[in-house]
Amino acid sequence: MNGQIRRQFSIRHMQTALGFLLALMLTISTARAGSPVNPAYAEPDKPGLPASNMQLDPQRVALVVVDPQNDFLDENGVAWGVVGKSVTEHNVVQHLEDLFKAAKSNDLPVFISPHYYYPHDHTWEFEGALEKVMHSIGMFDRPGPLDVNGLEGSGADFVQRYKPYLNDGKTVIASPHKVYGPEQNDLVLQLRKQRIDQVILAGMSSNLCVESHMRELLEAGFEVAVVKDATAGAIIPEGDGYLAALINFRMMANAVWTTDEAVNRMEALGR
Amino acid sequence: MNGQIRRQFSIRHMQTALGFLLALMLTISTARAGSPVNPAYAEPDKPGLPASNMQLDPQRVALVVVDPQNDFLDENGVAWGVVGKSVTEHNVVQHLEDLFKAAKSNDLPVFISPHYYYPHDHTWEFEGALEKVMHSIGMFDRPGPLDVNGLEGSGADFVQRYKPYLNDGKTVIASPHKVYGPEQNDLVLQLRKQRIDQVILAGMSSNLCVESHMRELLEAGFEVAVVKDATAGAIIPEGDGYLAALINFRMMANAVWTTDEAVNRMEALGR
Amino acid sequence: MNGQIRRQFSIRHMQTALGFLLALMLTISTARAGSPVNPAYAEPDKPGLPASNMQLDPQRVALVVVDPQNDFLDENGVAWGVVGKSVTEHNVVQHLEDLFKAAKSNDLPVFISPHYYYPHDHTWEFEGALEKVMHSIGMFDRPGPLDVNGLEGSGADFVQRYKPYLNDGKTVIASPHKVYGPEQNDLVLQLRKQRIDQVILAGMSSNLCVESHMRELLEAGFEVAVVKDATAGAIIPEGDGYLAALINFRMMANAVWTTDEAVNRMEALGR
Amino acid sequence: MNGQIRRQFSIRHMQTALGFLLALMLTISTARAGSPVNPAYAEPDKPGLPASNMQLDPQRVALVVVDPQNDFLDENGVAWGVVGKSVTEHNVVQHLEDLFKAAKSNDLPVFISPHYYYPHDHTWEFEGALEKVMHSIGMFDRPGPLDVNGLEGSGADFVQRYKPYLNDGKTVIASPHKVYGPEQNDLVLQLRKQRIDQVILAGMSSNLCVESHMRELLEAGFEVAVVKDATAGAIIPEGDGYLAALINFRMMANAVWTTDEAVNRMEALGR
Repeated sequence: MNGQIRRQFSIRHMQTALGFLLALMLTISTARAGSPVNPAYAEPDKPGLPASNMQLDPQRVALVVVDPQNDFLDENGVAWGVVGKSVTEHNVVQHLEDLFKAAKSNDLPVFISPHYYYPHDHTWEFEGALEKVMHSIGMFDRPGPLDVNGLEGSGADFVQRYKPYLNDGKTVIASPHKVYGPEQNDLVLQLRKQRIDQVILAGMSSNLCVESHMRELLEAGFEVAVVKDATAGAIIPEGDGYLAALINFRMMANAVWTTDEAVNRMEALGR
Repeated sequence: MNGQIRRQFSIRHMQTALGFLLALMLTISTARAGSPVNPAYAEPDKPGLPASNMQLDPQRVALVVVDPQNDFLDENGVAWGVVGKSVTEHNVVQHLEDLFKAAKSNDLPVFISPHYYYPHDHTWEFEGALEKVMHSIGMFDRPGPLDVNGLEGSGADFVQRYKPYLNDGKTVIASPHKVYGPEQNDLVLQLRKQRIDQVILAGMSSNLCVESHMRELLEAGFEVAVVKDATAGAIIPEGDGYLAALINFRMMANAVWTTDEAVNRMEALGR
Repeated sequence: MNGQIRRQFSIRHMQTALGFLLALMLTISTARAGSPVNPAYAEPDKPGLPASNMQLDPQRVALVVVDPQNDFLDENGVAWGVVGKSVTEHNVVQHLEDLFKAAKSNDLPVFISPHYYYPHDHTWEFEGALEKVMHSIGMFDRPGPLDVNGLEGSGADFVQRYKPYLNDGKTVIASPHKVYGPEQNDLVLQLRKQRIDQVILAGMSSNLCVESHMRELLEAGFEVAVVKDATAGAIIPEGDGYLAALINFRMMANAVWTTDEAVNRMEALGR
Repeated sequence: MNGQIRRQFSIRHMQTALGFLLALMLTISTARAGSPVNPAYAEPDKPGLPASNMQLDPQRVALVVVDPQNDFLDENGVAWGVVGKSVTEHNVVQHLEDLFKAAKSNDLPVFISPHYYYPHDHTWEFEGALEKVMHSIGMFDRPGPLDVNGLEGSGADFVQRYKPYLNDGKTVIASPHKVYGPEQNDLVLQLRKQRIDQVILAGMSSNLCVESHMRELLEAGFEVAVVKDATAGAIIPEGDGYLAALINFRMMANAVWTTDEAVNRMEALGR
């Protein structure tokens, strides 16, 4: 920028920039003074970011759970080796059931976005890194889009203890997503056809499918509250997927809650 | 799962699961034995994930740069306070120019996905955390979609040193994205109308707009190579945005390159 | 289908199929007996299709106008030669103003989805038939996405008499759509960020951009009422665009209204 | 527009406008002089629109068939009463088989975009006119997304004579679309993952699902050739769906072919 323009620019933005920095520095000091923070998993209740003001509308909110399937959540699932530690640490299997129970007992609509791969998916001509892994280990495999043989109890199947909630004739099971987000399934339409504006989001895995669902739902104009201990991520040499997700949830979502907080808010809806 | 089903499940998946775990453990040992790895920024050349096999097709590849604007990349920009450290550390301003220069000198198509906010955007009824911040600090502000008064040299303007590359009559400037991803602009269409299948992706900021672009381009069926040192992220108490992005780039993209590697690959295209 | 299966199939569907046919035949007879119907423009108040039950929600409805621009609506516009007859016949220029006036006087949100082409759009490698025409006649041309020189009063500009409604500081002007639908602009997001679920849709041209907007808004889960005499279409040797649109509006939209009916419903909202 | 601006506008656009009108008038005269044209089904080989220049790329083209299901194409299907006449007139059942046979014998990829409704779809809170009809007559009904009981031979099933082509282990069966277009299924991703850029489009019904697929594929940057006699539409008091589609195909698609022409072009690919 040349001199004159730069000056205008500086003058125009200095106040806001300074204000933002000051606010952040104050927050940083507070956070750091408050307690020896583990920088990787900093406390969300001492944020530098603006606090959430998301308020649930009883007529407009739903629970959306991504990939509540054995390959992620059962110790025999093909991905357990990389996600099991995080699933166990956050008690995800129990927390997801807590969310299902709270939603159903308060008559909240529940939507599932599952993940399946069919033989024709294995002929794709290119894939990202974890797509390759999912294909190579047979994750979420089914014999075809119109074939449910072998689904019962397989890695692609829903976790057994969730089935009473999923098979109650009310839960909407969307078509499968195929990469990570809901861009290729009918989740958004199903939500809108029930006049849903707000989503309580949980499931697997945190930085891949859950985060891609969060991002796409934000782009589609939903308010999204992510339940941070009802999701878990892969921990591999390239990094801690849960850590990545947590950072992005905090920066991007309309709210980040614990399972307890999500359950309490569902209970308080008075539906 | 009941006993019989669980057994079938176990038998079916044990081999693949064990194989995956063994492969990972081997990789982990190698990575850990090789050198004292900083777990936060582990080396991508010692991956547990499958190596990239992305090969550029000279007729099908383009450079896409997200938000090469002053508010992110100029020390007077309103976001410099939170991204400046990361921008400086990765030498992003220079690296983006290196990419523009390599693309143009090799006749590679270049696309920009910019970010602008107009007065009506400030009336939105709900926003995520960083959306609130961007609105409150006047980031990327313009007086209206059909009004470019004050744009020149402002925080919303392109970085001055990039303008010769952007104003050459060939670079495609897409409409602005409005949250983080390209879902609301014409980037994907512009790429497809030029028969582009492969994207070399860079710009700002790493875990927000760049990552949302990566994710949406993957869902739209592009091959995406992210240039990891031609992007940077906010470092705030809630976490290190660059770290989050790096983890997700490695897990999700078709390739993760340095600027040097991206430039070399563009030079080798022989266009 | 083999014999046994065919029988099951027949039995299962015969009742509904017969019922539907009977209902239709009755309707057809009524329609035909009622008056000498011009089959091309049959009366919507004697439908074979189910009647609309769309009720406007005062807090959730907006007016969306597509392409209220000179190239379509001014006698000097480049498309006037093919759309002028239909525009005049349906009194579209006045009807669009009636809609703007009713929306504004009842404090209804108004959104515009405009159409612009920039020099880089003219380098697309392939186009459909009418895309080719639009590009070749310089329709909606502007010198660039960040350049509004020459816009004032040009074919790409908004019709002069609408400007007081569009420039009131409240109307949302979305980014341009680039083919026919809003898939490449921010219209859907802007609507959702204002918590809009219902759209009163009008503008130009009927079977191209307006119909593509209707279809995409339906897929995005909006209720859409099309104002059938606040839109018009090209009449060319290949067919009457308005006729095609009218058939599809009736089959697909949640409601099809006249301008009078739309205005009355806006007046009745009590906002 | 005021005087001065209007004059500039006129001068700028008069030449192109006049040129377009002259070209059109010439075409109109020719078309009218040539033969007594039925204005409803004018000959596409005497167009006012630019001729198609779409050339198939053997490595980049696929056949996409929408809804090749009994409810549309079998005389026992629930929609036969309204589409049967058009299906028979255009010999659609045979033409679709001709397309499948030509694609398979020339090793062209084939994709199906089917239509299914599940019990939860019948709880949607609002619907357009024909959506209501489809739901009320049980069209495309299946007991659930993970339940194929009763599918075999039902109205939702594929036409029996197409099954050898669809069940050959190569044809990609996408997830179901839910309104009319492929916005809610994985068709676009499946095409892109096989590096497809060009689509030969056919199926049912012409102005609803086929046209919505054409429009969305155009927006997604595909070249689309519609096979006009391998599709048919509902004829109801509100209008002739096939007529509406034909007008829009001609105006919007990259090419409009007969089945014979499409087969010849597939044969000529030399795959």
